[in-house]
Amino acid sequence: MPFEAQDPRFAERIHASFARQRVMAHLGAELLEVRAGYCRIQLPCRPELTQQHGYIHAGIVGTIADSAGGYAGYTLMPPDSSVLTVEYKLNLLAPASGDRLVAEGHVVRAGRTLVICRADVLAQRGAEETVCATLLQTLMTMHGKPDRAS
Amino acid sequence: MPFEAQDPRFAERIHASFARQRVMAHLGAELLEVRAGYCRIQLPCRPELTQQHGYIHAGIVGTIADSAGGYAGYTLMPPDSSVLTVEYKLNLLAPASGDRLVAEGHVVRAGRTLVICRADVLAQRGAEETVCATLLQTLMTMHGKPDRAS
Amino acid sequence: MPFEAQDPRFAERIHASFARQRVMAHLGAELLEVRAGYCRIQLPCRPELTQQHGYIHAGIVGTIADSAGGYAGYTLMPPDSSVLTVEYKLNLLAPASGDRLVAEGHVVRAGRTLVICRADVLAQRGAEETVCATLLQTLMTMHGKPDRAS
Amino acid sequence: MPFEAQDPRFAERIHASFARQRVMAHLGAELLEVRAGYCRIQLPCRPELTQQHGYIHAGIVGTIADSAGGYAGYTLMPPDSSVLTVEYKLNLLAPASGDRLVAEGHVVRAGRTLVICRADVLAQRGAEETVCATLLQTLMTMHGKPDRAS
Repeated sequence: MPFEAQDPRFAERIHASFARQRVMAHLGAELLEVRAGYCRIQLPCRPELTQQHGYIHAGIVGTIADSAGGYAGYTLMPPDSSVLTVEYKLNLLAPASGDRLVAEGHVVRAGRTLVICRADVLAQRGAEETVCATLLQTLMTMHGKPDRAS
Repeated sequence: MPFEAQDPRFAERIHASFARQRVMAHLGAELLEVRAGYCRIQLPCRPELTQQHGYIHAGIVGTIADSAGGYAGYTLMPPDSSVLTVEYKLNLLAPASGDRLVAEGHVVRAGRTLVICRADVLAQRGAEETVCATLLQTLMTMHGKPDRAS
Repeated sequence: MPFEAQDPRFAERIHASFARQRVMAHLGAELLEVRAGYCRIQLPCRPELTQQHGYIHAGIVGTIADSAGGYAGYTLMPPDSSVLTVEYKLNLLAPASGDRLVAEGHVVRAGRTLVICRADVLAQRGAEETVCATLLQTLMTMHGKPDRAS
Repeated sequence: MPFEAQDPRFAERIHASFARQRVMAHLGAELLEVRAGYCRIQLPCRPELTQQHGYIHAGIVGTIADSAGGYAGYTLMPPDSSVLTVEYKLNLLAPASGDRLVAEGHVVRAGRTLVICRADVLAQRGAEETVCATLLQTLMTMHGKPDRAS
């Protein structure tokens, strides 16, 4: 599904927004790539992100998946808008462990107000890669409320 | 719905497990209360947990809600088991901001293998309290795999 | 949570809308009660609604739960609006069988555009009652598009 | 993702199970195709399946999506098992109307006990086709409980 962004400067806008998501720095996540309808975020696996079995906590997996889906959707929104997560559902498919997690967000359908996205989270260890989670998400476009530092 | 725990020492087991969830310390979350079929976790709102608008990131809200639901479910599981989140859905209802978030997990139905839980997340500011998110979750009992430090 | 309807004639509006949901008649469902923020729908268990094990099909359980939640939300919407389901998640908790199913929808949070609802489905056999499913749902208010026969 | 069925006679097993889902006949749904990890179900759009705006009711969309995902998962389960839906989430993407709906279920991950599936529902009108809904689902394998007429 090829999407076209209505804002030619969407990548700049999203990099700036990501930089203001202070939790991304706290977790150690990086924005790797952003295209119209797509966003990829990477999170190195660190011991301070683990749950009781030593895997990355499902909620942290959900955090980068939510941001990857959210920014995938935000690529298609107008410049003077901001993005809000209405809800998401996350299925855990395999242990989230390895060298790093990579969340890939994709727009499924972009309406004027609501945007539906999907994200897959890959657990990478060396050259191996496993899909460890999948997310289905509803976003809301906040028209007339630009996403900027206040 | 009054639940009865089959393991009289469930609270001890859950406190030990929570202490091994290293991400809880990284976020600053604390286990406040655990009863049969119920668990409450508190997270002080800190700037390093925020998204681009200054609210606590939806994924972090989901993290404490997932742990609150997960440990609510784990109270009813046998001593030689561990708990795994199969999936959860989170609806965001209001901005997650204030002094602290409190996630309350409740068991909805406890089967032998699968346990379904719900969690509400309250945003507290002074004496005011708003439900800012609700979660519906499926857990799996891993029989014969005690949750202990390896 | 006591809700107040902005449209004093909401019950009339919802009974008319329910009557136009032709699938309700095809399944045999009836609208039992509607109050501000609440709706109850009943479905007698009939063999033609079953899945392969003789229980009511999960999708049919979801159908009355979706309508119960949707009309609970619609009670709080303005007269010149209609209601649309954005998404729902359904957890099946026990076999859906007995004399009848009763779906009770409740508003969790009513925003201007989005309304979040919950519905529980009870399986009733004689005087016994079991919660057989629970639903968490996002609705959208279609402002300026009254729900009427076209 | 190529899947391999452990039961060579899975298609026969699924056709027999589908035939026992009496609700499929009541709705007018047909099983079009079944392959390892995949299932396709068709539902002609009929007035008696509509909601108040004349579209197919979201719950009916969910019914064929749940069966398509459920039988996709069941292709990979052993002969002496039956399949149970634990939960599903459905996002509605476009009005469900046209000549027919086609639900395509795909296995996302097949574990020993739990199987995660996805289903897309296409609304077809003449030669046009729109994805009108997407479902994410958790199934449970009931080992040792064959799915047969009782």
